[in-house]
Amino acid sequence: MLKTNAGRFFEDYRIGDVIAHAVPRTVSGGERALYHALYPARHALYSSDEFARKSGLQASPIDDLAAFHVVFGKSVPDISLNAVANLGYAEGCWLLPVNEGDTLRSVSEVIGLKQNSSGKTGVVYVRTSGLNQRNETVMEFVRWVMVRKRDVDAPAPDTVVPTLKKTLDAADLSIPAGLDFTDYDTTLAGEPHRWGDYDVGETIDHVDGVTIEEAEHMMATRLWQNTAKVHFDATNREDGKRLIYGGHVISMARALSFNGLANAQMIAGLNGGAHANPCFSGDTVRAWSEVLDKADTNAPGVGAIRLRLVAYKAGAAFELKGDDGKYLPGVLLDLDYWALMPK
Amino acid sequence: MLKTNAGRFFEDYRIGDVIAHAVPRTVSGGERALYHALYPARHALYSSDEFARKSGLQASPIDDLAAFHVVFGKSVPDISLNAVANLGYAEGCWLLPVNEGDTLRSVSEVIGLKQNSSGKTGVVYVRTSGLNQRNETVMEFVRWVMVRKRDVDAPAPDTVVPTLKKTLDAADLSIPAGLDFTDYDTTLAGEPHRWGDYDVGETIDHVDGVTIEEAEHMMATRLWQNTAKVHFDATNREDGKRLIYGGHVISMARALSFNGLANAQMIAGLNGGAHANPCFSGDTVRAWSEVLDKADTNAPGVGAIRLRLVAYKAGAAFELKGDDGKYLPGVLLDLDYWALMPK
Amino acid sequence: MLKTNAGRFFEDYRIGDVIAHAVPRTVSGGERALYHALYPARHALYSSDEFARKSGLQASPIDDLAAFHVVFGKSVPDISLNAVANLGYAEGCWLLPVNEGDTLRSVSEVIGLKQNSSGKTGVVYVRTSGLNQRNETVMEFVRWVMVRKRDVDAPAPDTVVPTLKKTLDAADLSIPAGLDFTDYDTTLAGEPHRWGDYDVGETIDHVDGVTIEEAEHMMATRLWQNTAKVHFDATNREDGKRLIYGGHVISMARALSFNGLANAQMIAGLNGGAHANPCFSGDTVRAWSEVLDKADTNAPGVGAIRLRLVAYKAGAAFELKGDDGKYLPGVLLDLDYWALMPK
Repeated sequence: MLKTNAGRFFEDYRIGDVIAHAVPRTVSGGERALYHALYPARHALYSSDEFARKSGLQASPIDDLAAFHVVFGKSVPDISLNAVANLGYAEGCWLLPVNEGDTLRSVSEVIGLKQNSSGKTGVVYVRTSGLNQRNETVMEFVRWVMVRKRDVDAPAPDTVVPTLKKTLDAADLSIPAGLDFTDYDTTLAGEPHRWGDYDVGETIDHVDGVTIEEAEHMMATRLWQNTAKVHFDATNREDGKRLIYGGHVISMARALSFNGLANAQMIAGLNGGAHANPCFSGDTVRAWSEVLDKADTNAPGVGAIRLRLVAYKAGAAFELKGDDGKYLPGVLLDLDYWALMPK
Repeated sequence: MLKTNAGRFFEDYRIGDVIAHAVPRTVSGGERALYHALYPARHALYSSDEFARKSGLQASPIDDLAAFHVVFGKSVPDISLNAVANLGYAEGCWLLPVNEGDTLRSVSEVIGLKQNSSGKTGVVYVRTSGLNQRNETVMEFVRWVMVRKRDVDAPAPDTVVPTLKKTLDAADLSIPAGLDFTDYDTTLAGEPHRWGDYDVGETIDHVDGVTIEEAEHMMATRLWQNTAKVHFDATNREDGKRLIYGGHVISMARALSFNGLANAQMIAGLNGGAHANPCFSGDTVRAWSEVLDKADTNAPGVGAIRLRLVAYKAGAAFELKGDDGKYLPGVLLDLDYWALMPK
Repeated sequence: MLKTNAGRFFEDYRIGDVIAHAVPRTVSGGERALYHALYPARHALYSSDEFARKSGLQASPIDDLAAFHVVFGKSVPDISLNAVANLGYAEGCWLLPVNEGDTLRSVSEVIGLKQNSSGKTGVVYVRTSGLNQRNETVMEFVRWVMVRKRDVDAPAPDTVVPTLKKTLDAADLSIPAGLDFTDYDTTLAGEPHRWGDYDVGETIDHVDGVTIEEAEHMMATRLWQNTAKVHFDATNREDGKRLIYGGHVISMARALSFNGLANAQMIAGLNGGAHANPCFSGDTVRAWSEVLDKADTNAPGVGAIRLRLVAYKAGAAFELKGDDGKYLPGVLLDLDYWALMPK
């Protein structure tokens, strides 16, 4: 019997399957320090226990995207080891902050299946949840991936395409218990611009760029225990390049967006996202944002802002798609998320 | 008086010398996070405090090989700064888990000396012990290295070659107090294969590969405070290459072996090991294992398995030596160790 | 209104301005582990809680230079984002050890302004202080930088050049409360040479070299949340090179100086420093030291030693300036600091 995990193929998934992913993870100050070494992350709530406590939290949690990466990484061996492409995200909700000492594990439910017309691949939709040591769900999200079939002659399953929200309503967002921005210190946070200073439709060029290194994206991807070969093995692709984990680009772009959105402190919802083009070592990543929506919340001093975050490696800020409606070749990421800001 | 440490030469060692090594080290969650960023380490007992507690331990210890590297690294300035080659390991025993907050130091005893026929070098055998802040020995191992003479005319010492066990008996292994695998969760651990599912003689191709980067092996080697110049200084060798610390290859191979040996949770004994060929940045490291032996233990639910772990950068899985009995040029490491698995 | 921070220009500073810098930072074992992974740091007091306690401290603090980098990094967006050059340091004092769990923030006061004769730039002198969560000053230093003017026609301010001590007196140094080296263990520290073994005028070649990697200097610089573009963006300079943060060279040289100055445990004062030439990835950094002065202290068993620390990438140890009085092109750093040693 073969002992190694060859990953699941399209015909191995059934609607309703609940897959418990392996390798739970206890996070510590080490993860926080590494996150800050790998990305130019500066949001004060994730840098300072004091700032977090003044905002009503017990301590500075690990970065929301670090929590996402941990939860996502665990799902890779079961969901995307044989994936041809990560097609999309939806309904991502951060439900509880993840603090040092918490232990995370992940579970995915198969909620959609659609064989492609080629008969060689299919699309698998899963809702992945991250749970802590108290079995509380700390976050969840839907993603769908194109997965190879092992046997092209395996019968196609009934097509089930889940109905997913195009975007979360602000009312769908979970605000961490106790969060209170009434005494928010914009000087310590780094910028004066509050929720009321942003207009829907406004765009922001985040100005800075970071040139990507192999050692950095591999360390990041390993830290989340994401095992997809293509990120680590230079012999895997014909061009000898290591494909960079899409989440590395997400975290890099989000960190770059501090410059102009320093007060978009917490990520509360992920509406959608596309990895428009692959990223490789040597690429210089830049980012721009667009304000898509704004909404009030019940938490004291807290407003919600919906943002498009675009990462690009060529071209210019605010460029996105060509006349054909397709992403321009220099665009890496088009992400749509809700953040929480001081009013 | 020269203030810098030039290292010891062959004629500086005497049988029975006990050398206390410098720079004790307190380990924290930072070491654990970095270990997981530098290697694709996924053994659940070293990733999750909860998993470790359900296995009867107080918390997730630092990786057994991280403990080895810390203990080993301290010995480098006194033992192998002028080493021409690391020739072998024997009788390696992990006696106590190393937990966050523990402070380690190392001591070595010279147990063998043998001048080479050239008169220019000799072999030094030492038994190195790692001790914690309670002066408990957490691990020990024997290694022997070829060391240059400072003065080729220095008289040869009496030859003493220690009698070393070719392999540890399972009865020689220390099982951590309280270790209990009766409620072991194979789903969380990542694979269903238990001790009883492995046969002596069975071989496993661990499939995955990792291409090595300069920044990563240097960060790893520095973290263990191993100061050997050849790992850090590109001007040290004529070919401008930095030789990768052999322990980096050991940890990489062990981490890769998760895929097929996810339940070989704890390393309990090191029977032997050879660094067959040097490893450099740009090499893609792969690994395969062979089951050499199995034995029962007294701990509830715990079996012992003896494994050969081979790392290679060229050639194929299961290739080891040529017709001349020598390691093939693509083989990096041939390690023989005991691990503890759930029955 | 532009949301991003364009940084301040020369005409934006006024004598007496007090600038509170953003993004407070809680440090943990993660920062310590990363510091030891990025630099060959081996001073025992910063490696072992036990060693620190035997020296009268509550635990092993984060490295003095790590504390400096954290405090310095916060000042970059307000002080040196538009800097042409970091010209000098003076009156650097380490006042309190920074322990795990401490949260640091920085404040700078403008103490000098001098427009250059070109009318395009000016020199800004600031005294930057790092404060912990109890509002205690943990360190402070003066630095001066050449900053561009936004508008070359802006009127020149009155010239104020602060009177700065060429060097701190030993009496100016803060010795951490409780520090006691009477039971100091030179074996654990790594070298036998005590304060009394060093002579003023003595020079030490630290022998070892480290070849610098992009991933490492960027991770270090990000960890200190230093956002200067030129360190991260390979498209920023015409030659496609990323300029390495001068503080990376300082930490590398200090760590290399362990070999010969293992007992110069704590940095207590920074008298001055010059970044003589830029450092880039691929450079191999070496270091040498010169004993400039010695002084007694009131703390039991503790002596002070004033050291010149020179880092170089070409040339040889003990070379510094040419016949023209200028730094040789291979010299990277000329630092003048006070350290505390066991008597």
